[in-house]
Amino acid sequence: MPSLRVALAQLPNRVGDLDGNVERIGAAMAWAEEEAGADVLVVPELALTGYGLGDLVLHDAFVEDAREALDTLAERSGAMTTVISTIDRVPPRRSWDSRDRSVAIGAALVSGGQVRGMYHKIFLPLYDLFLEARNFAPGDDPGRVWRIGETVAGVAICEDLWGSDGPPEAQAAAGAQILFAPNASPYHRGKAEGRLANTREVALRNGLPVVYVNFSGAQDDLVFDGGSIVVDAGGRLLARAKEFAEDRLVVDVPVAPPRPSATVKPPRTVHTRPLLREEGPPPPEPPLPLDDVATVWHALVAALRYWTERNRIDGVALGLSGGVDSAITAMLAVDALGVECVLGVSLPDPDTPADELADARALAATLGIELVEEELEADTDTTDAWRHDRRMARRRAAALLELADARNMHVLATGNKTEISLGETTRFGDLLGHYAPLRDCTKTMLYELAEWRDPDGRILPPRTLSRPSTTHRLTPLDQFSYETLDDVVQRYVEHGQDLDAMVAAGHDAAAAEEIVRRIDASEVVRRYTPPGPKVTSRAFGHDRQMPIFSDWQPHPHGGPTPPVAPGPELPEMLILDGVEQP
Amino acid sequence: MPSLRVALAQLPNRVGDLDGNVERIGAAMAWAEEEAGADVLVVPELALTGYGLGDLVLHDAFVEDAREALDTLAERSGAMTTVISTIDRVPPRRSWDSRDRSVAIGAALVSGGQVRGMYHKIFLPLYDLFLEARNFAPGDDPGRVWRIGETVAGVAICEDLWGSDGPPEAQAAAGAQILFAPNASPYHRGKAEGRLANTREVALRNGLPVVYVNFSGAQDDLVFDGGSIVVDAGGRLLARAKEFAEDRLVVDVPVAPPRPSATVKPPRTVHTRPLLREEGPPPPEPPLPLDDVATVWHALVAALRYWTERNRIDGVALGLSGGVDSAITAMLAVDALGVECVLGVSLPDPDTPADELADARALAATLGIELVEEELEADTDTTDAWRHDRRMARRRAAALLELADARNMHVLATGNKTEISLGETTRFGDLLGHYAPLRDCTKTMLYELAEWRDPDGRILPPRTLSRPSTTHRLTPLDQFSYETLDDVVQRYVEHGQDLDAMVAAGHDAAAAEEIVRRIDASEVVRRYTPPGPKVTSRAFGHDRQMPIFSDWQPHPHGGPTPPVAPGPELPEMLILDGVEQP
Repeated sequence: MPSLRVALAQLPNRVGDLDGNVERIGAAMAWAEEEAGADVLVVPELALTGYGLGDLVLHDAFVEDAREALDTLAERSGAMTTVISTIDRVPPRRSWDSRDRSVAIGAALVSGGQVRGMYHKIFLPLYDLFLEARNFAPGDDPGRVWRIGETVAGVAICEDLWGSDGPPEAQAAAGAQILFAPNASPYHRGKAEGRLANTREVALRNGLPVVYVNFSGAQDDLVFDGGSIVVDAGGRLLARAKEFAEDRLVVDVPVAPPRPSATVKPPRTVHTRPLLREEGPPPPEPPLPLDDVATVWHALVAALRYWTERNRIDGVALGLSGGVDSAITAMLAVDALGVECVLGVSLPDPDTPADELADARALAATLGIELVEEELEADTDTTDAWRHDRRMARRRAAALLELADARNMHVLATGNKTEISLGETTRFGDLLGHYAPLRDCTKTMLYELAEWRDPDGRILPPRTLSRPSTTHRLTPLDQFSYETLDDVVQRYVEHGQDLDAMVAAGHDAAAAEEIVRRIDASEVVRRYTPPGPKVTSRAFGHDRQMPIFSDWQPHPHGGPTPPVAPGPELPEMLILDGVEQP
Repeated sequence: MPSLRVALAQLPNRVGDLDGNVERIGAAMAWAEEEAGADVLVVPELALTGYGLGDLVLHDAFVEDAREALDTLAERSGAMTTVISTIDRVPPRRSWDSRDRSVAIGAALVSGGQVRGMYHKIFLPLYDLFLEARNFAPGDDPGRVWRIGETVAGVAICEDLWGSDGPPEAQAAAGAQILFAPNASPYHRGKAEGRLANTREVALRNGLPVVYVNFSGAQDDLVFDGGSIVVDAGGRLLARAKEFAEDRLVVDVPVAPPRPSATVKPPRTVHTRPLLREEGPPPPEPPLPLDDVATVWHALVAALRYWTERNRIDGVALGLSGGVDSAITAMLAVDALGVECVLGVSLPDPDTPADELADARALAATLGIELVEEELEADTDTTDAWRHDRRMARRRAAALLELADARNMHVLATGNKTEISLGETTRFGDLLGHYAPLRDCTKTMLYELAEWRDPDGRILPPRTLSRPSTTHRLTPLDQFSYETLDDVVQRYVEHGQDLDAMVAAGHDAAAAEEIVRRIDASEVVRRYTPPGPKVTSRAFGHDRQMPIFSDWQPHPHGGPTPPVAPGPELPEMLILDGVEQP
């Protein structure tokens, strides 16, 4: 079958760095046209502006700057067509509320020194972490297609591919023989598999090849894992770019046979070149995807590197307790930043068991990081174990901050998703830090990471893996295993299941209800969690918008509604008592 | 003109408290029908479920529980019609992305023991703090009207009123003679004025009276200020409910004359009663609205009371420094919670000026609150004033936390919006606390609050008002007055203005650019701000979704783009160095 030579540039995601993004895209254009001899180059969604723009697009000056940046790139374009995704000013459009939006997510087709046309994204995701419909106007021409030489091509952007009757279907009906798809698809576990499955469905349903290009690189709480793919019209994977790294690919993609257009609108001609190429030798077998646990580790590393770079700090400090959370965090920090940029801190008090201190020392020695030890005074004021723990957690946090400050380092909070879900964490204590790398990793995931990163046990002290959690031991949930806790956390938080589904899956109803109740009651404490990377399908934060205070609790079907506990008595409102109103 | 007797119940906003909300609405129904003799009762938007539901509506069991709660209320209904806003299951609908939504915001009309019909909100606001389009499906019948006795009535919910061609217009065209409008309209400065102006426009444009009912009561970071209004067909204000308090009103509202319907769909009959009443005596003059500064104080008081109640704490502790921020916070806490629930803490170090300590003592004595004094050790480690300040701020935070914990109190952070905008605040230091009441009040607003709450200077020590801010004195912006700083903060943060507009308004271009640059650079620090109430049109947090890290900066029109500073050099990625991948 005749083919187009398509280049993919899997770029980093740099929000607002218009000059830098112009350079990166421009370099990819030069490479694709001059070295790779490509007919078409595709870059990720919003590669020119960066993806996570938020309310930055409400600044007219930013929208104008982005247009100038696009013109700069267009001027540099040659015979090859480049699909450059960027924001675009459009006529004001009213849609889901009383306000107009006048900026769209676009994909410009540039060649021969000019912007030849612009596709506007139709579907604007507004679920989980996505907020696109907040500021963007939807496109109004889902079936727009383009003539590139003899080939009719479609362009669809990210979410456009995830309905079964969206732009790809409209463009196929309009005669498209190949689909170019710029994406900004953030990482979570299992995402790569889902993308491939969906891209295959799009290809098979519409009988055309799909070129799917993603970012690689972190932005705020998100990691973009790359893994761009090319799938042929039969759903076969032709190529896969690196995961968690910048990459460039060039692939001869067999285009679908010409087909009659069902629509009245003819394709807009983008460029008269190229002639279609004859079918060449089959491409090499694409690399296997990374294993699930490996993707988590890569994401954590990428996120911590990004955080360190963007904050212009000299490294990170963390408390080494002898437990698994801090050990994983230290191992991660060394992988991400190198030993010079990681400071271990041991803060025992007179009650700290000697073996915990020994394990912290052993880990620091094995990793080769500096360990500062400071003994805290005994806390003699209290006989309440819970209050004692909280007080010591806060003193440790304060000591850690002073040490980190003196070296221009950030403090890493070592709490995991299980603790944060259940509220087994102390505000301003172990939850304090500039960054919380493990905030979206459950405890059982930490053991999987330990097994994956240290399969031979050369790094982690054996007792570190077997030692029970000190934060967990004093809570009402200490009767439950981490397997039980984490399964309920995942079902409730990540999948939004109700109690009946958990019972059907084998959970004890009373146990599940108690765990879920703890998760709900901890909503307020979670508001104090430091930033950290998303690695699951639903992290706390943007992905899950829950009220801080709600009186409703899940309960078994047909069972009684849990009663709402009465609040404390406050005195009558004293406002304006004795105040003369002006 | 003939009139309907309409009752309004300005209820509190209790999220998820279905049983409690049933009781509150049920009590209002009994009052309206039996005592007030009303024909129609209207309650606020989502009065049955609470407004800020977030992802709670993704739980099917919650949607089912809400339906059962509505049926309970319907069974209690008599001859009077009640407009009860709640969530409602609807057929799945696809709109702005690839996912379906199947829950709408509704307003049920109940009478005679039954749910007679349900209107579904059309416009789902998705800007500033509003996220309704995230989980809700839009209604598909904007022109639906209802026959209540001889009267044809329309129902439109909150955002439905804010377009000029929305449901009120469609319902007027369908013959509506009166409009019932349940609302969940959060407070910000000037909001009440905007609501009245818009409601008048709706009434005048459509030639019908509008009954606008709002919540009174806090929910998370929002305060709902009540102030429900009734406007006649000529735009005249007939009645206004209390602001910042629960209230009930009963008003004989003259309905518009019967008009022919332009639509083919006849009104659905809700109830055959009532006969229209003859015109009665004119209603009493509505009370004047609260003054702008007074509304801010009421909002701060309501929010702090709510926070204290929902957290089941015994009060709040705060550091008294002798400065205006902490003095205002203390005054506010006493108004909200009473003297028994407020602990002042003075934490001088050997360098603290004696007059600051004296002012803290004087304020505590005047307010009648307990003052704990603890002298901190001198910090001899450093000669760097900025680092010294940061270290002392953190030690104060740690000491304050220990004192608050021992009394089951929360710590109030006293930082204001100016500091938080400019990053003149220390993470884990003065920015540390469970709650930050002043986070949305600029410094100049604090002086206005001081003048309003303490007009005779009986509470605040004179030096407290004149003392320069210690956090501000060491920053690059200390050359600018608070008037300049706050004006730029308001223009940039609250109104999204660009630099050209600021210059046109009289600002020095270089000064404005420097201030704006500081605001942008402080985005990351703001992520550590404790929760606190919104009082302006755009608070930090939900209202303003900015990337944590962005390289774009506003610059004067035609001026050069500010350069992006290079990041630090990190070692090459070390990941997987020596790891055998499984």
